[in-house]
Amino acid sequence: MTDLSSSLPPAVVLLSGGMDSATVLAIAHAEGYRPHTLSFRYGQRHGLELKAARRVVAHLGAACHQVLDIGLGQFGGSALTSDLAVPKGRSLADIGQGIPVTYVPARNTIFLALALGWAEVLEASCIYIGVSAVDYSGYPDCRPEFLTAFEQLAKLATRAGVEGQTPLTIRAPLIALRKAEIIQRGLQLGVDYGLTHSCYDPALDGRPCQACDACQLRQQGFVEAGLTDPLWLKYGLA
Amino acid sequence: MTDLSSSLPPAVVLLSGGMDSATVLAIAHAEGYRPHTLSFRYGQRHGLELKAARRVVAHLGAACHQVLDIGLGQFGGSALTSDLAVPKGRSLADIGQGIPVTYVPARNTIFLALALGWAEVLEASCIYIGVSAVDYSGYPDCRPEFLTAFEQLAKLATRAGVEGQTPLTIRAPLIALRKAEIIQRGLQLGVDYGLTHSCYDPALDGRPCQACDACQLRQQGFVEAGLTDPLWLKYGLA
Repeated sequence: MTDLSSSLPPAVVLLSGGMDSATVLAIAHAEGYRPHTLSFRYGQRHGLELKAARRVVAHLGAACHQVLDIGLGQFGGSALTSDLAVPKGRSLADIGQGIPVTYVPARNTIFLALALGWAEVLEASCIYIGVSAVDYSGYPDCRPEFLTAFEQLAKLATRAGVEGQTPLTIRAPLIALRKAEIIQRGLQLGVDYGLTHSCYDPALDGRPCQACDACQLRQQGFVEAGLTDPLWLKYGLA
Repeated sequence: MTDLSSSLPPAVVLLSGGMDSATVLAIAHAEGYRPHTLSFRYGQRHGLELKAARRVVAHLGAACHQVLDIGLGQFGGSALTSDLAVPKGRSLADIGQGIPVTYVPARNTIFLALALGWAEVLEASCIYIGVSAVDYSGYPDCRPEFLTAFEQLAKLATRAGVEGQTPLTIRAPLIALRKAEIIQRGLQLGVDYGLTHSCYDPALDGRPCQACDACQLRQQGFVEAGLTDPLWLKYGLA
């Protein structure tokens, strides 16, 4: 799992500290890459997901882990980076219908653009991103057509595009998976989901609110997989 | 020039503090927009261009000026964000051939992605960027096909793309202009180029090195336009 020998080709892995990106890090290892993980301090209201990202890196391994500061809170416009209220108790049928206030404007475009910069320096041939277009929150920048357009852009944006090297690819191995399938894939690869964090509005000690969209999608995944969430278990919630 | 009445539609203007983006700010005003200017502290070695950006905003006006921190220096890979040497004394024929070490990996992708985030919050219909594919340094992310690909991406990346609103456009009014033509256009619109900054490797007091690619392209522009550079005049260089 943690073969980081420099003979393996480098890849950049976007790592939020949530379940999906932890799974993707394990997949990048399994597919023979030397992962360089990238997290962001982007004005999100709590630092728990960055702590989770560090735990996941300590567990699964990475050649280098970087946390980049970007002050997206300056722009406002999202419940995740301002004092807008996080929606609670929406039904699973409602989640995914329309774009909720937790959407951070252009977030995946920004994250992929920064990953592209690092990938170019590393001469990495791919970027891994843990988006899913199945059990998701209805964000526009989680759709396959968005990822295809970014790959097209990356072909033109960098040295490789001018100098005729192999263009970079965007790998989204979870794009067509349901949450339960993501969990099953991750468990096969040794991911410890007790180290991850999903809640948009946790208590100070990290206890999930159990009511935001992220908590509900997570819980639905474990229920469908017929498993108990080790994180919820840790907080006595399961 | 400084009509900032809220009845005008908002636009985001990428503003580096150089000649091109100052000209583009004046054009955004002339085209009837209420410009919101965006600069970056991205690990560049000196803060002179950010000071120049503030002078340009004070002179031409903007509804709001934001400076966003992004630690691109963490990635390395460019003479502008690390201690790699800035090339000096290259001939004008050499400038534009190949990609120089002053190229910052994926910089315009990153800047446009962040501008897209702010544009979405402001409900702005366009982003202005001062790139030129004529008298330029050979950067891949200054080419028209790159800008077209970004516009395609923006259609899919945001709320507008999902909810069927008018998609955002990328305006690059200098794309086909030579440096001398940019200067002439800016002077017509009242730009004071003595407030701008171009040099990649200035002295501590802001004195241009006169030898880097940026200084040479700037000087060539004023010579072709039959004008004296007010900045160089200020430092007794012209």
